[in-house]
Amino acid sequence: MADRPNFATLPDPPYYAVIFSSELDSSNPGYDEMAERMVELASEQDGYLGIESARCSTGFGITVSYWRDEASIRRWKQNTEHRLAQEYGRTRWYSSYELRIAKVERAYNHINSERR
Amino acid sequence: MADRPNFATLPDPPYYAVIFSSELDSSNPGYDEMAERMVELASEQDGYLGIESARCSTGFGITVSYWRDEASIRRWKQNTEHRLAQEYGRTRWYSSYELRIAKVERAYNHINSERR
Repeated sequence: MADRPNFATLPDPPYYAVIFSSELDSSNPGYDEMAERMVELASEQDGYLGIESARCSTGFGITVSYWRDEASIRRWKQNTEHRLAQEYGRTRWYSSYELRIAKVERAYNHINSERR
Repeated sequence: MADRPNFATLPDPPYYAVIFSSELDSSNPGYDEMAERMVELASEQDGYLGIESARCSTGFGITVSYWRDEASIRRWKQNTEHRLAQEYGRTRWYSSYELRIAKVERAYNHINSERR
């Protein structure tokens, strides 16, 4: 799986997903550093399973983080450093965002090993 | 909401999400046209609620489509034209993908109207 750096490697369902869709302002000082720090910090939390993220050149992006259970998500939401990032997100970086909490019930994948 | 073209406008939860993470091959003849057609076709299906999509310049992307219930997702999966697109996806366009079916339980949003 070392050649699939963008994909999260997850256990079998069930587990939880936090689907975060956002429109980044064209001016977003400090955003890249904080985003990188949040991925690092999230990965240290109990119940964290993985993260996948993609952003268009226009500024619209989707980040999905995966968690063992709802309690893990609640704890992450309340993490002090993460709360500061959330505040900056609302006031400095995002013109708009949507956040959805979902229980992953089934998962499938496909890897074209023959082409690698 | 007309100024938020990338965001899906959805009813209150619960509803279902299909989280599709994929790595697009650098050579993907016909992909853009088919992707556009699939968004159009999906939007005509019973139970379709909306779609959000973002892809990095490196080829990694996340598309989340939203559906009323699991029956709608099953029907969409079996749609004849969509099945052809799935086959092309496996054999021609994606080096790898992950597909997850999840039940959205809660949703929040934030819109910075003051900056618009």
